[in-house]
Amino acid sequence: MRIAVAGLGNVGAAVVRLLQMNKNLLIARGADLTVCAVSARDKAIARSCDLSSVEWVDDPHALAARADIEVVVEVIGGAEGVALELVTAALNNGKHVVTANKAMIATHGIALALLAETSRLQLSFEAAVCGGVPTLKILREGLAANRISSVRGILNGTCNYVLTRMATEGLAFNAALAEAQRLGYAEADPAADIDGHDTANKLAILAALAFGVAPNVASIPTKGIRSVTQADIREAASRGGTIRLLGIGKRDQLGITQKVEPVFIPNGDPLFGINGVTNAIQISGDFAGDILVQGPGAGGDVTASAIVADLVDIARGHRGFAFGVLGANLQKSSN
Amino acid sequence: MRIAVAGLGNVGAAVVRLLQMNKNLLIARGADLTVCAVSARDKAIARSCDLSSVEWVDDPHALAARADIEVVVEVIGGAEGVALELVTAALNNGKHVVTANKAMIATHGIALALLAETSRLQLSFEAAVCGGVPTLKILREGLAANRISSVRGILNGTCNYVLTRMATEGLAFNAALAEAQRLGYAEADPAADIDGHDTANKLAILAALAFGVAPNVASIPTKGIRSVTQADIREAASRGGTIRLLGIGKRDQLGITQKVEPVFIPNGDPLFGINGVTNAIQISGDFAGDILVQGPGAGGDVTASAIVADLVDIARGHRGFAFGVLGANLQKSSN
Repeated sequence: MRIAVAGLGNVGAAVVRLLQMNKNLLIARGADLTVCAVSARDKAIARSCDLSSVEWVDDPHALAARADIEVVVEVIGGAEGVALELVTAALNNGKHVVTANKAMIATHGIALALLAETSRLQLSFEAAVCGGVPTLKILREGLAANRISSVRGILNGTCNYVLTRMATEGLAFNAALAEAQRLGYAEADPAADIDGHDTANKLAILAALAFGVAPNVASIPTKGIRSVTQADIREAASRGGTIRLLGIGKRDQLGITQKVEPVFIPNGDPLFGINGVTNAIQISGDFAGDILVQGPGAGGDVTASAIVADLVDIARGHRGFAFGVLGANLQKSSN
Repeated sequence: MRIAVAGLGNVGAAVVRLLQMNKNLLIARGADLTVCAVSARDKAIARSCDLSSVEWVDDPHALAARADIEVVVEVIGGAEGVALELVTAALNNGKHVVTANKAMIATHGIALALLAETSRLQLSFEAAVCGGVPTLKILREGLAANRISSVRGILNGTCNYVLTRMATEGLAFNAALAEAQRLGYAEADPAADIDGHDTANKLAILAALAFGVAPNVASIPTKGIRSVTQADIREAASRGGTIRLLGIGKRDQLGITQKVEPVFIPNGDPLFGINGVTNAIQISGDFAGDILVQGPGAGGDVTASAIVADLVDIARGHRGFAFGVLGANLQKSSN
């Protein structure tokens, strides 16, 4: 299967490296995957992968038009702009798309899903939520037999690192954030993480798959961790617990509710003790009960693991609607 | 898709009930599943499902021969006997098979996989390991891009319950076991659980998928928890940890090692704090890092969740080799 990779930051470079390093393993597992072309802004940057046998394309839009490409991997980022243009063009040109772009999927996922489904193409985004932990696959497939009543998780490693260091080292919020920035766990402009928007994007995607609704990030009440103080953390500790930023989606008799906010986590809660940049999600199903999955939530390698898992599924011929129930309905209405 | 269920204990009855309760949900998710025939020893027992619209068949072997059945669900149990006869006959007659039977898969899995693959049929057994937690799917698909270096887990709820109660209540082994039996967490003859054989069966399956080897339960050094004393538990607690029965599979430069034994778990280990009948598995991949999954490991409902997930995969047309790499090799050698 012939692949183009658009974007060669940490994630894109790790995808190329993974496909080189584990090529024989992947062939044995039923997926012969070859990167034929890549595109990024700066050709001169040193990267963790070998690009000697890969064609460099200056304009990422050109990847969507190539006849020799079956799948476009989009790891440019951003809800709009080049990423959205490229993905739209790729689907219009009959290419499957694999992306890690949570903002784009949370915002434009339904429109892109419709485009994919009308052409019977795959639009896959396991890497958009929880790094290398196959959370979307667990929801869509592993728990496919269950009516899901809730998804509840620590979805942002930056916030979890800051809150962990505030609790274990007694750091003030600003000091913990500065440390996270020094270590590369937080961006120079940390707003998307710290103010909860990244968590809201991921929750919107999880809730869409769990409950069969359209992702609607604009409707999610979102509170970040900027106002969490040392006094709050100490007060939580005095009650035997801690504070974590959670994305919470629930379905009960009153309907579906979604919110992002800092929450008191008591000792004994499965989300207690999830420290540092780890992500963890608890999913509750009517037959499977409470399932917890956890793992490193960010980083080039773990994100590449999820992207290549999506590629393997496509190579194996496994097809599914981008948004489950909704996808089925979309397809019906488009037939 | 037309299904027969062989065995109507807790698990079989829960499968029938799930397919009735969540029928519309499953149809919306792309799987229209109907139980057409069932078989069990005693028709008169009160069960948790409605059998009024299902044909009762006295001889389970007859299910394998029916022209109107596409998938046989085997939940009779036992490595040999009726279960093995039925599964063999079903595959010979062109039926897909879904089973929860860890002993049969660990012992006869390769022979059955060969039978399935030569006829391009699905042999699925997610329910054999870790109840409703989709561990095999995570290994085969979610982490398909990874070279797996270890799988390590609490795979038997009975043992974990006994060890938990020994630690939290100060019970002697025999008293904790008697309590587990009273509560239905341990069988009247607890040997298969307590002596580690159930854990070894599950580990053999996990290791086969993780490392691409044949399951070989006879080769796994297996030590159960019968000889764990209160003194051992107190000594572990004095070092800030606890004791758990683990199944451990590793691959390093020296090769693959597998073992089942009680292990000291320090506070801070992701498997510390996994209490009662919960199962938990840590999987380490070269790109995804350490993933931990946990959930209720046994019971009719959770096992039914895994069985129906396998049925949904078949209905969606997702096909895969029963034993991954090995399956691909098997298929090559049989062509």
